[in-house]
Amino acid sequence: MTDLRTTVESYWAAADARDWEAFASLLAEDVVYTLPQTRERISGRERYVAFNREYPGDWHARIERVVAESGHAVSWIRLTVGPEEMQAVTFFTAGEDGRITTVTDFWPEPYEPPAGRERLVERY
Amino acid sequence: MTDLRTTVESYWAAADARDWEAFASLLAEDVVYTLPQTRERISGRERYVAFNREYPGDWHARIERVVAESGHAVSWIRLTVGPEEMQAVTFFTAGEDGRITTVTDFWPEPYEPPAGRERLVERY
Repeated sequence: MTDLRTTVESYWAAADARDWEAFASLLAEDVVYTLPQTRERISGRERYVAFNREYPGDWHARIERVVAESGHAVSWIRLTVGPEEMQAVTFFTAGEDGRITTVTDFWPEPYEPPAGRERLVERY
Repeated sequence: MTDLRTTVESYWAAADARDWEAFASLLAEDVVYTLPQTRERISGRERYVAFNREYPGDWHARIERVVAESGHAVSWIRLTVGPEEMQAVTFFTAGEDGRITTVTDFWPEPYEPPAGRERLVERY
């Protein structure tokens, strides 16, 4: 059984390469995808692969960090679409056979900091 | 040495209780806090404790999930302020003595899903 860190690395490599066969092979048939920010949920491998295959834009993903333990992992990725960069954080769980059973994505957007803490922070 | 999962649980418990002495005891003296969404950075335990102590609002944090491995951890929390709920994802690293050396926070906001994927998703 492949460890979940390797599975998560393969997940992003397959998505980045639009290799949907390889991508599907990492997923449990009853995988559940959840987007808490929109309260959307997708159930089942076929629908989840379709969602990714149809996702618009010439985006590319680069892994910043993966944290993994038995059955659980998290990736932090940088996703570029042309000159734009976004960051995403994704929680994974896997079953006993190592396939991904749940995927939960967060897409945090840039925002302007509130006033009042300038003496403590620097901007980068 | 306490494992990092326990340290992260203590971090949120101390913050929730506004126990800044306990909170500070979990941090390396040269801890660096980073907020990628605002491109803010805070360097040093004293400033980082001050930032948290001064943070406005009667917020309360509840841990949804912690994923931890040697030297790295991630928490997913639900933070309530009165009737409002937010979610946050925080990456941690720790030094050899188990104290937290870096904290990187993401605060994803709710948004409306784009049109065109309704046949694949359900809302919850």
